[in-house]
Amino acid sequence: MNQAAPPPMRQMWHPPEDPDHGKGPGCNPSGEDAYGACAARAFGPTIELPAADAGPVHPGQEGDAMSTLADLDTPFLVLDRDRMDANLARMRRHAERLGVTLRPHLKTVKSVPAAQRVLGDMANPATVSTLQEAEAFAEAGCTDMIYAVGIAPAKLPRVIALRKRGVDLAVVVDNAAQVDAVCAASRDAGTPIPALLEIDSDGHRSGLRPGDPQIVALGRALAEGGAELRGVLTHAGESYGCFTLSEQEALAAKERDVATGAAEALRAAGLTCPVVSVGSTPSVHFATDMTGVTEVRAGVFTLSDLVMAGLGVGGLDDMALSVVATVIGHQPDRGWLITDAGFMALSRDRGTAQMPVDQGFGLVADLDGRPFGDLLVLKTNQEHGILGMREGSAAPLPELPVGTRLRIYPNHACATVAMHPSFAVIAGGDEIVETWPIERGW
Amino acid sequence: MNQAAPPPMRQMWHPPEDPDHGKGPGCNPSGEDAYGACAARAFGPTIELPAADAGPVHPGQEGDAMSTLADLDTPFLVLDRDRMDANLARMRRHAERLGVTLRPHLKTVKSVPAAQRVLGDMANPATVSTLQEAEAFAEAGCTDMIYAVGIAPAKLPRVIALRKRGVDLAVVVDNAAQVDAVCAASRDAGTPIPALLEIDSDGHRSGLRPGDPQIVALGRALAEGGAELRGVLTHAGESYGCFTLSEQEALAAKERDVATGAAEALRAAGLTCPVVSVGSTPSVHFATDMTGVTEVRAGVFTLSDLVMAGLGVGGLDDMALSVVATVIGHQPDRGWLITDAGFMALSRDRGTAQMPVDQGFGLVADLDGRPFGDLLVLKTNQEHGILGMREGSAAPLPELPVGTRLRIYPNHACATVAMHPSFAVIAGGDEIVETWPIERGW
Repeated sequence: MNQAAPPPMRQMWHPPEDPDHGKGPGCNPSGEDAYGACAARAFGPTIELPAADAGPVHPGQEGDAMSTLADLDTPFLVLDRDRMDANLARMRRHAERLGVTLRPHLKTVKSVPAAQRVLGDMANPATVSTLQEAEAFAEAGCTDMIYAVGIAPAKLPRVIALRKRGVDLAVVVDNAAQVDAVCAASRDAGTPIPALLEIDSDGHRSGLRPGDPQIVALGRALAEGGAELRGVLTHAGESYGCFTLSEQEALAAKERDVATGAAEALRAAGLTCPVVSVGSTPSVHFATDMTGVTEVRAGVFTLSDLVMAGLGVGGLDDMALSVVATVIGHQPDRGWLITDAGFMALSRDRGTAQMPVDQGFGLVADLDGRPFGDLLVLKTNQEHGILGMREGSAAPLPELPVGTRLRIYPNHACATVAMHPSFAVIAGGDEIVETWPIERGW
Repeated sequence: MNQAAPPPMRQMWHPPEDPDHGKGPGCNPSGEDAYGACAARAFGPTIELPAADAGPVHPGQEGDAMSTLADLDTPFLVLDRDRMDANLARMRRHAERLGVTLRPHLKTVKSVPAAQRVLGDMANPATVSTLQEAEAFAEAGCTDMIYAVGIAPAKLPRVIALRKRGVDLAVVVDNAAQVDAVCAASRDAGTPIPALLEIDSDGHRSGLRPGDPQIVALGRALAEGGAELRGVLTHAGESYGCFTLSEQEALAAKERDVATGAAEALRAAGLTCPVVSVGSTPSVHFATDMTGVTEVRAGVFTLSDLVMAGLGVGGLDDMALSVVATVIGHQPDRGWLITDAGFMALSRDRGTAQMPVDQGFGLVADLDGRPFGDLLVLKTNQEHGILGMREGSAAPLPELPVGTRLRIYPNHACATVAMHPSFAVIAGGDEIVETWPIERGW
């Protein structure tokens, strides 16, 4: 296959033209009705069918100087760079308005060329979910990272190795065993490892409870034990389960208050707390006042997905990620189309299952990216996808012959990205302008 | 990290000592009660806690000549070669008793060194789920494969390329568009592409209905259009939803009857049908009479998993696949342990969700592979696993300090394998004796 060459390393990001067509973060923040309208815009059933002049699909055509979405063997992963640029521009403006530093979470894109575009300047702050990401991004010039998963003591040698290369990599802790290990590793290496105390803002995962005296005790142990108390960090993951604007705004405020409260407790005890870090894409998106917060971490906003659309964070036309599949069969009696994109290509993620609009394993669009509306991936086997109409839909199953190429928008961008070796990058059209490798593993 | 070197290519498989300790396929085929007892043996709640003399876990220890499960950074994937060998030996004996050829489905292991062990001689028949698998296994000497996903016409050039290298790769079709494309590609290449007609034995995915006159029409079109009618193929995927021995045996018989019925229809029309191919691990495992069938395809039996254990196909001690994770925190108020193995390491697969015993996202064991019994992965985020006791369990949460390494048995081996770059291979003990790369992508 004739794929475009990867871009040169350390290529700089150029801000795109302002693409903000009235759908900035917060949508219309005047009340729940406005949010409801915003969310309704995002949902499938209101999408129109593609125009009749969309033209036929020509699977497998070859011979052009540049590959297109019709050329590569399916399934493969597509990233629309124009949509990503628009998502980045909106979030940057939003962070600027809030007066906080944006520290994008690169766990969504997991790719050096994508990270270069997300960060703009690789010296800008970043968040990572694995040390392999940290090592790959450090190699490409990234010098300011938080590894935002509680540190396993055995991984500290890799943290030290990166720090000795001049990378300001900080770790996250929420218990005495981790603090002891970080202090011991700092003393052994003769260099303090910066650590953030994780605070639990919503009971969904890790972190010390707000008001727990251990916050100050562990902060002091870090500062006095040879490590560096860098600050506090929280992640309001429950924002994925908030379906009204008032719930989202309340959770964003709680996330802020929990983080700033912990910072105040540390400062009141005579400790420093330079960083107050909060985030999740929805809680950042819906935040209106970040007083006391220094930085926000968000990742999935970069590519967006059906979960984000369902939460009203973005519209369907903000989704920059899709999987190209080919129709390989039909079961007309059951109202099914069969494709070659199963759970290996889409992931098993069912993030919309508990949401107001369940999108199955993905929303199906034509090769130009226009959703059919009610055509979903109903079921996935390893290398088969079973497509059919949304339950209750009155629309007929589209006539899509064997060989037709489709684009499937996934529930959860992070989960789908990690199923693929690379992104086929488009810029609005169907030409593949770049190929960006994806860093999988740990 | 000091990993063992990959094994030499084309290494031959040596059958292990007979490990069949009274749990061969079919379990005790004397009735549902016997099956119930068999299944009960497999379920978590009856598992005993590890012996008190299990000894402490030493995370991160280094300096041995050979790496152990305590050395590599977590999460990573472990394959117990001894257990796999035992699974292979049992299935080979079962196929021999049934008088059918075993054509293992390599979609589970997706790895050249693993395939060499599964096939024994690489000239033996194999099944693949992607053309990338076919190309990798062909490179390692595999010459007899079925690509068991309905062919997308645009992929035929890669099929032709493999066939021109001497690989007998067959494709699968169930509609006229595919047949036309296969015939046209055969004529263009001047060599007939062998195709199997997919027959639908249980309504769960692809295939022509039993008795459909299209079976003969498409068979004739292949034979007369320049391709080769190799035979018929069916896959009773509904075997994953059969929870009694009588249901499983009935489905296995139906799968056989549907395939042999289609073969008879072709032969009655004067066409040849040399191959009658059936399979899914459960339907092969529970089959007692394969008269008229020439070969069985099964994949997940090689590694086994919690779904297979739940179906009574194997016991928990037949599971050859696990993920090593490290405890990174605790939430004692909620009865949770937090580890560094989230859905990136385990996959999002919830294959046991609809089964009699729901195993969450995985069953947790100590580093020696002995399940704690009721300790499950309750929830997964991208790089976090949340562990807790099975609902209704009276057992206390085990005391597992930060840094403790655990092994997690996954629901679905195929889904978990594809999340990882390689297997750390053990042979019963904790030494990593080989590292086997995994072929991901398409």
